[in-house]
Amino acid sequence: MKFRLITAFACLAMASANAQQDSLQFRKISDEILLNGTCYENLRVLCKKVGNRLSGTPAAAKAVTWGEKAMKAAGADNVWLQPADVPYWHRGNESLMIRRGDGKYQKVTALSLGNIEGTGGKPLEAAIVMVRSFEEFKTLPDNMVKGKFIFFNYRFRQDFPFTFNGYGDAVKYRWASPSIAAARGAVGVIIRSMSTGADDAPHTGSMHYNDSFAKIPEMALGNYTADSLEHYCMKGKVYAKMQSDCHMTEKLVRSYNVIGEIKGSQYPDRIITVGGHLDSWDVGEGAMDDGAGCVQSIEVLRAFKALGIRPKYTIRAVLFMNEENGLKGGLAYADSAAAKNEYHVLCIETDAGGFTPRGIGMEMSEVKKEKIRNFKNLFLPYGVYDFSQEEGGADIGPLHRKLDVPAAGLMPDSQRYFDLHHTNNDTFENVNHRELKLGAVALTQFIYLISEHELL
Amino acid sequence: MKFRLITAFACLAMASANAQQDSLQFRKISDEILLNGTCYENLRVLCKKVGNRLSGTPAAAKAVTWGEKAMKAAGADNVWLQPADVPYWHRGNESLMIRRGDGKYQKVTALSLGNIEGTGGKPLEAAIVMVRSFEEFKTLPDNMVKGKFIFFNYRFRQDFPFTFNGYGDAVKYRWASPSIAAARGAVGVIIRSMSTGADDAPHTGSMHYNDSFAKIPEMALGNYTADSLEHYCMKGKVYAKMQSDCHMTEKLVRSYNVIGEIKGSQYPDRIITVGGHLDSWDVGEGAMDDGAGCVQSIEVLRAFKALGIRPKYTIRAVLFMNEENGLKGGLAYADSAAAKNEYHVLCIETDAGGFTPRGIGMEMSEVKKEKIRNFKNLFLPYGVYDFSQEEGGADIGPLHRKLDVPAAGLMPDSQRYFDLHHTNNDTFENVNHRELKLGAVALTQFIYLISEHELL
Repeated sequence: MKFRLITAFACLAMASANAQQDSLQFRKISDEILLNGTCYENLRVLCKKVGNRLSGTPAAAKAVTWGEKAMKAAGADNVWLQPADVPYWHRGNESLMIRRGDGKYQKVTALSLGNIEGTGGKPLEAAIVMVRSFEEFKTLPDNMVKGKFIFFNYRFRQDFPFTFNGYGDAVKYRWASPSIAAARGAVGVIIRSMSTGADDAPHTGSMHYNDSFAKIPEMALGNYTADSLEHYCMKGKVYAKMQSDCHMTEKLVRSYNVIGEIKGSQYPDRIITVGGHLDSWDVGEGAMDDGAGCVQSIEVLRAFKALGIRPKYTIRAVLFMNEENGLKGGLAYADSAAAKNEYHVLCIETDAGGFTPRGIGMEMSEVKKEKIRNFKNLFLPYGVYDFSQEEGGADIGPLHRKLDVPAAGLMPDSQRYFDLHHTNNDTFENVNHRELKLGAVALTQFIYLISEHELL
Repeated sequence: MKFRLITAFACLAMASANAQQDSLQFRKISDEILLNGTCYENLRVLCKKVGNRLSGTPAAAKAVTWGEKAMKAAGADNVWLQPADVPYWHRGNESLMIRRGDGKYQKVTALSLGNIEGTGGKPLEAAIVMVRSFEEFKTLPDNMVKGKFIFFNYRFRQDFPFTFNGYGDAVKYRWASPSIAAARGAVGVIIRSMSTGADDAPHTGSMHYNDSFAKIPEMALGNYTADSLEHYCMKGKVYAKMQSDCHMTEKLVRSYNVIGEIKGSQYPDRIITVGGHLDSWDVGEGAMDDGAGCVQSIEVLRAFKALGIRPKYTIRAVLFMNEENGLKGGLAYADSAAAKNEYHVLCIETDAGGFTPRGIGMEMSEVKKEKIRNFKNLFLPYGVYDFSQEEGGADIGPLHRKLDVPAAGLMPDSQRYFDLHHTNNDTFENVNHRELKLGAVALTQFIYLISEHELL
């Protein structure tokens, strides 16, 4: 009994010493990144020297070169490119004009949705019929659909405190409405953007055709223009003239994931992957989506190196290619891991914007989650408190599913993300340096913890 | 025993029913404000139609009229103005020019600090001596101080995760350096702004003279200009020519707190005060500091009214005058409460910006805090998790201290506040509508809880 008590006290004392040690190391990580972090400057270069970088474009290739250089500058032991063949969607010229009754056509600000087949550059003119939901669309008589533009005027639900819930709810209107409308003979689709913005920025983003139906074009309006069109449609007849060159090219384009690695000191074969995606939509600068995630992932490596922390596990930062319209990078990474029989203990993604972090979501067994949650108080001084959500990421999804790798996702404050994402407003100027850096702090602390305590 | 058990179960069942009821009511409050809230539009009007509104100015008087109208529109049972006589500080024209060695003077962007006595409109020319801290200043020989401008080049500490800690650390350089420098014969002070900004915006704000010493002028530089001046000072001799009309007028000006009230249904004599301050510095639009707090406080009343919730306690929204350079509104409010022998159960302030809320700080007994913390899980779905901090507010300080009223303070995300506050960048455009509204949601939920459960 006495021995057990002594052991218990010794354990407690050790645990307390460990906790103090962790707390000190967390502070060092935070200080290093907040004071000397290069992620904000890296983001500036990516946004201003490369700019937006849709998969398959020369800008995406330039981003690969940028990523390689940034990984080396961060001090990665090894940096390499992993091939991934990606689709190339071309926007070209596009325009949307609206006419009320017998009035004149007026040009409105609009963006074609990604992957769309446009009008072949020719004007497509038809009456607009507005519905507020798929349910309402079903109630339309055929003559109100055939030969018409359907305006899916579904509003992003602002009542969800966490905006990703609103996005999850609304995104089907972007993704599926062309085929749903084409199935009944509509000639095109106009949607209200998936946007929380109190502004007029249209949001692009992926859509998907069902091959059974005609590939009709789809364009998105910002909230103000959608409000106007709603008003017009309620008052009388409205017509649209749509024109666009958009098309998906047939051949895939060779591109790459950019990978940088610090070799583990004790278990070099155990790999932790941290990543964001390097491609972006072809508007704005891809700053929040997902330049932020790229520079944060690189910052993790830089912080380990700068602090002289040799991690027990191998830490890999991955800039995935083609998250936006194909996920080819994520798939290639998972295939390679499987082919090489790599042992991945954790993959964590940062693709929800460079805002102040609030939590880290996890997709893994409850036993593993609990192991991690035992340490959650360490994160509180940095404002990271929520370890209760089920979150991973798109790019790490294939690895998570194919090899059962525990997945996690950085969860920053979500309020401004859907004001910016997939718009011309997603620029460097809309990223705050401290918020961006704090995200990198949380990622580095989390990865340090998993590796140092061999939690996974 | 049996009876007690049944009672216990009944209590548990009631507690659970109550928790469900609270949770539903919290959701209704959130929906009402996120979907129908008028605080963002109110803020637009305050910022764009009134603009910045330093105490004693015509703009501040216009803001009082605006506040009265907004309180009535929100549905307050009673709206009244409470007199407060405030100081009036006048900026007038000002300029700062810098010269290196024998070079030419070049104008730099700078702002006089609030309450400063300027140069009487005449140019004041002297050499600049840079120090990085008060400690370093003490080591300067007298001939390096006398007749010189002292440049207090103290950097806002970016290593604090919570930026108010950095502000608390740095603000003494704004507040006290003129008298400290004048005590040793300096003719003026230049400071690096209390700023987290990766930009060149100078920040104004209150300073205070020690009457024993000469009242010398003080101007603040943005971070980029401060970096340049630092560089110049390290390379060789640097001179400044400062000119400003700034002065404090002798007579106080009659102004007002704006108060709106919903009478309590069961305990009309028990008062909960929620407030922000109506005055701002004379730059930007006073959007975050503290237009946001004003419109959030008004929104609390509007939400109660719109939802048809008759609170048990009386809820008072107060737009305090003169927080920035005198606190006369807060003092008048406390004096009036004492004179009328009012029974205040809680005062809560929102003066930390309209950013996503993270917590509510409390200054009250541990027993009272614990009563409130029992309900903290109700706030989690709204991202409000931190009830551990000791926080109140400047305007409610006099009430808290004079009558021992429990105080609280809304704690939003702090990362961007010190990029904006007291600068020309503190404009409506830098406030996000969802973040602002979520702050009002948290305030309303908190006040609902205290009143409904008679927690205080």
